[in-house]
Amino acid sequence: MRNIAYFDNAATTFPKPEIVYRFMDKFYRECGVNVGRGQHKLATKAAKLISDTRASLIELLHCKNKKVIFTHTATEALNIVLQGINLNSGDTVYISPFEHNAVTRVLYHLQKKTCIHVEQLTVERETIQFNLDEIKNQFEIKKPAAVIVSHASNVCGVVAPIQEICALAKQYQAITVIDMCQTAGLIDTDLSTNNIDFAVFAGHKTLYGPFGVAGFICSPTVELSPLLFGGTGIDSANQELPETIPERFEVASPNIHAISGLYAALQWIKEVGIDEIYRKEQANHRRLLDLLKKYRNIGVVSSNKSNEIGIVSCVFEGYSSDVIGNVLSEKDIAVRTGLHCAPFAHRFLRTFPTGTVRFSVGYFNTEEDFVRLEKALDYIAENA
Amino acid sequence: MRNIAYFDNAATTFPKPEIVYRFMDKFYRECGVNVGRGQHKLATKAAKLISDTRASLIELLHCKNKKVIFTHTATEALNIVLQGINLNSGDTVYISPFEHNAVTRVLYHLQKKTCIHVEQLTVERETIQFNLDEIKNQFEIKKPAAVIVSHASNVCGVVAPIQEICALAKQYQAITVIDMCQTAGLIDTDLSTNNIDFAVFAGHKTLYGPFGVAGFICSPTVELSPLLFGGTGIDSANQELPETIPERFEVASPNIHAISGLYAALQWIKEVGIDEIYRKEQANHRRLLDLLKKYRNIGVVSSNKSNEIGIVSCVFEGYSSDVIGNVLSEKDIAVRTGLHCAPFAHRFLRTFPTGTVRFSVGYFNTEEDFVRLEKALDYIAENA
Repeated sequence: MRNIAYFDNAATTFPKPEIVYRFMDKFYRECGVNVGRGQHKLATKAAKLISDTRASLIELLHCKNKKVIFTHTATEALNIVLQGINLNSGDTVYISPFEHNAVTRVLYHLQKKTCIHVEQLTVERETIQFNLDEIKNQFEIKKPAAVIVSHASNVCGVVAPIQEICALAKQYQAITVIDMCQTAGLIDTDLSTNNIDFAVFAGHKTLYGPFGVAGFICSPTVELSPLLFGGTGIDSANQELPETIPERFEVASPNIHAISGLYAALQWIKEVGIDEIYRKEQANHRRLLDLLKKYRNIGVVSSNKSNEIGIVSCVFEGYSSDVIGNVLSEKDIAVRTGLHCAPFAHRFLRTFPTGTVRFSVGYFNTEEDFVRLEKALDYIAENA
Repeated sequence: MRNIAYFDNAATTFPKPEIVYRFMDKFYRECGVNVGRGQHKLATKAAKLISDTRASLIELLHCKNKKVIFTHTATEALNIVLQGINLNSGDTVYISPFEHNAVTRVLYHLQKKTCIHVEQLTVERETIQFNLDEIKNQFEIKKPAAVIVSHASNVCGVVAPIQEICALAKQYQAITVIDMCQTAGLIDTDLSTNNIDFAVFAGHKTLYGPFGVAGFICSPTVELSPLLFGGTGIDSANQELPETIPERFEVASPNIHAISGLYAALQWIKEVGIDEIYRKEQANHRRLLDLLKKYRNIGVVSSNKSNEIGIVSCVFEGYSSDVIGNVLSEKDIAVRTGLHCAPFAHRFLRTFPTGTVRFSVGYFNTEEDFVRLEKALDYIAENA
């Protein structure tokens, strides 16, 4: 069995709620077929599970006016959105300083094709807080064509004021994209506003579902050029993709196995309550921060403000993050070291290019996990 | 529990071998983390599982000289390959008459961007056999830039002579792409030849794995422009994707859950033996054909040649395929009706636009399944 203190929840939450494992296994054994209405009973049942999962997501994110498009990874979702919004030469795209390579590498590719400018939204270096007045000025000087913001940084957990940023961006009719990989299901968020055009989620992170299902929320009248082409199960004679959403962006067999896991996870979130999940995660975050700050050999990257989730980057005096990662691994503690696929975040936080040791908590961290971590940190401090 | 006679194996094989369900559940419970060498013990274990799965695939397909790139669907793999091979204006692309929308819709998209010509390889209409002499002539008249062939049709099961077609194509230095969704793990195929540039597979079909893992086999020196951009876990500071294969084409978190299922499925194939799986599938195919041909109200689309796999399309006298599908569904028999995302195959077989009732067998069809099917077909014949 598991015998690890798991502080790598930002990479993927682990473990999952028991019901997620159980429901996935049962559903896939009993109904592991390809979907399709009116094909056969199991296919109809599988199709219903998918539409029920969409409905649960819509409920969780308070956006009955929007559509859910399922992809297989959040990276796929970001590629579909960013490559599909048709940026023009000369356009300015604003991103936060914390964007993942799933955003910045796509933009880099687009920059090579089209002459777009990529600018960073102003964040105060000392407090790691977004400066809305300054962002307003930035938009005034260079009109935003698109604004892309991680709701919470996967490096330091800082939460962006997405509603305010998107409201500012919409004064310039910019397209707004929120990366909610670290927040969907954790921070209660209302996506009904027209200020948010696209919100990307990853099933296997804060939604406590499995790998293999992710996607984005958008308006039913979205303008987006497709990136992937293939079978849609409907309108098959037509070589154009269907105009209907979500079918237009959901080519290929849906992953009913993963979606069944997300379905169970969403039921679990509803049962426990998103506020309770947030409360427990914040308690674990506080416990982690208090522990880390005890050690003089550990530099903690933190805003010390309340708007952070349980992702903490650290620098250990005298040791590279990889060496610390190995020591922790030997003591059966899971963390993630290096650049976390977010080199610009590390540049901003001045932890580039060596990176950090990232600890990230989840709902399921236990007393035992923290005890084990404390012992290991004591050991490192003694040997520092 | 399952109470269905399942004849929809071409959509996805069902059920899976018991070991696939069991291993997936166990692995995901014990090691459901994000991969990464030298991060923590579970991440290293997950990374090893992925490399072991690649090695098993390489062994199954006899291609130690090639690389395995994992994607999430075969459609994603086909998009990466077809959008990445950089066709030029004026190029002629040959496809079989049986290609899926995952090929033809991508080509249609490329045709709108670039002036490429798409031609069909010659197949004899009466015998449904590829005419290699005629194909040679076609290539002589219009040089092929790329040749894309489904190893077996997902509509009528006809198997293409891929080695011969690719050898002909390579006389013109054409890029060759084989869609093995219906054959990998079923027909013992040697992909070591340099005549085959790309072979696409779907984990959830004849490989008896789950949804969520697919991919393609290619040479390590392949020339292909990436389609999807994002984190790769390595070389994170670089905004260019890594040059190394498979990392260049494997952005985002790998689906370790699905890959663990494919791993178990490949172990199962090795244990049972691909020849034995093929033998049993062919016996089920023969049994299905013999049954269907008993009925005067059923028109069976078949080459009557030996090179077919267990996918049989039928037309029922006096009834649309959807009506027959509904009757069968009522009797707890699963088939797939309509165009099967392959409208060109139906045009070729003259079953367009109404489509067919498709029966497809797998390794796990039972005596009971055929008895139930026979009763249902008797009922339909009596009421025809």
